[in-house]
Amino acid sequence: MIVTDSEQSAAKICADWRAEGLSIGFVPTMGALHRGHESLVELASSSSDRVVVSIFVNPSQFGPSEDLDSYPRTLEEDCNKVRELGASLVFAPKADAVYSSGFSTGVSVSNVSDGLCGAFRRGHFDGVTTVCAVLFGIVRPDRAVFGMKDAQQVAVIKRMVSDLRLGIEIIAAPIVRESDGLALSSRNQYLSFEERQQASTISTALRNASDLALSGEKSCKVIKNAFLVALEHSDLLRVQYVETVDPDTMIGVETTEKRVLLAVAVFAGKTRLIDNILIESEV
Amino acid sequence: MIVTDSEQSAAKICADWRAEGLSIGFVPTMGALHRGHESLVELASSSSDRVVVSIFVNPSQFGPSEDLDSYPRTLEEDCNKVRELGASLVFAPKADAVYSSGFSTGVSVSNVSDGLCGAFRRGHFDGVTTVCAVLFGIVRPDRAVFGMKDAQQVAVIKRMVSDLRLGIEIIAAPIVRESDGLALSSRNQYLSFEERQQASTISTALRNASDLALSGEKSCKVIKNAFLVALEHSDLLRVQYVETVDPDTMIGVETTEKRVLLAVAVFAGKTRLIDNILIESEV
Repeated sequence: MIVTDSEQSAAKICADWRAEGLSIGFVPTMGALHRGHESLVELASSSSDRVVVSIFVNPSQFGPSEDLDSYPRTLEEDCNKVRELGASLVFAPKADAVYSSGFSTGVSVSNVSDGLCGAFRRGHFDGVTTVCAVLFGIVRPDRAVFGMKDAQQVAVIKRMVSDLRLGIEIIAAPIVRESDGLALSSRNQYLSFEERQQASTISTALRNASDLALSGEKSCKVIKNAFLVALEHSDLLRVQYVETVDPDTMIGVETTEKRVLLAVAVFAGKTRLIDNILIESEV
Repeated sequence: MIVTDSEQSAAKICADWRAEGLSIGFVPTMGALHRGHESLVELASSSSDRVVVSIFVNPSQFGPSEDLDSYPRTLEEDCNKVRELGASLVFAPKADAVYSSGFSTGVSVSNVSDGLCGAFRRGHFDGVTTVCAVLFGIVRPDRAVFGMKDAQQVAVIKRMVSDLRLGIEIIAAPIVRESDGLALSSRNQYLSFEERQQASTISTALRNASDLALSGEKSCKVIKNAFLVALEHSDLLRVQYVETVDPDTMIGVETTEKRVLLAVAVFAGKTRLIDNILIESEV
């Protein structure tokens, strides 16, 4: 496995693979890799001849009051993990190489990115789409794998790829969870013991709300309220949003008659966690 | 030569060429082709195995009070012209095919697009960069040719291609002029006889202002003023802007010690004309 911070090297290696007729699967990450990321690498590996993992803590997708400086950076461990999973290339560029002198281009996706996390993290998705467009330009993968924990990100990236005719298959990988249900996240390591204990309530409450829908409840309002009630006794948790949306467009829906994504953002202390569950009621 | 409005057909044809190892030169146009466009097709043809011309009057690059509805549409003549010049494919899509249902992505370039035409045509360059990104995604050319009459457009597109690592060579073709100096433009046909007569003053005044610099004048203020004075007696002309800028960044410059682009927008009656000249003083 090759590890490089050089864009020219990464682009050349990928171009050579393409010229040899090898397909490329791409997993863009911000590092601090956990089993969730590992599942993405495995999915890329099973569908492509070569797997490229980028590790880049992208400044432009953090807000001014967010955790850019404290975001965990563990490059060596990250490389060891993806090496074992069969990745062929880790591309870990410096910020000033990605946003080189005079960089002035922004790629933004409206509508899909307006609600949910987009409403609370101004500019976040512009940062995500722009850096993904740049990384896609360097790697030129056949497919890219993203985790469904960031369901809105998946929808936004799919929209961009479709609109700009990038010709990249976007694979959405299932959420990987701890044994008590907490969705894996690089930010979970910020949690205190008590916050970590209470945080498991989020996934339990999501599952229970989903079960309510599957047992016949059609009102999204009732389902969202069930989630809120389930968190009431967790004094370290504070709900930022709970929404029921169309999983492709992220437009809010009121009934469970079609596929509905129940998506939430919850603060555990100062740590912001997101999670979601897809509700596919039988009609 | 193939003429198609089908994106799928155009993309397939171009993909087949690439698979055969043939290079693709691309000339994106809004149709109403004149000798200026023809020079672009010739340049593309001399540098590439296959030439693709797109003809698409892009609604999103027109302002609400601009000439989208009256913009000349002459598809059949356009096709005849580029066929004779050796184009292999004309891609003339419908607007609702380019901006298909749910289209939500915007590509924008700041800084380079802020001044000159960008300051007077709000949203214009966002429309240009977005549609070019889409067309580049469909055609995937090795190089694309743009005319230097739209000097700011050339700089904006170069910036986008560099930032998004599109790997497309952008060729800037010299301005083609009528015998009296007027830069060719599809909008020249809007001009009345008197407006057309006075419009030639624009290029004469540009050339004279440039000569002033070449004969030793270093102050851009003096040079810009010379342009304004030269137009004073043309009662049908109204200057919208006259600027001296760095030709790559479009940042204003005050002296002619480096390469300077003298760029102007002038209304002849209701018709907005642009023109420019590159001043390369010997230092």
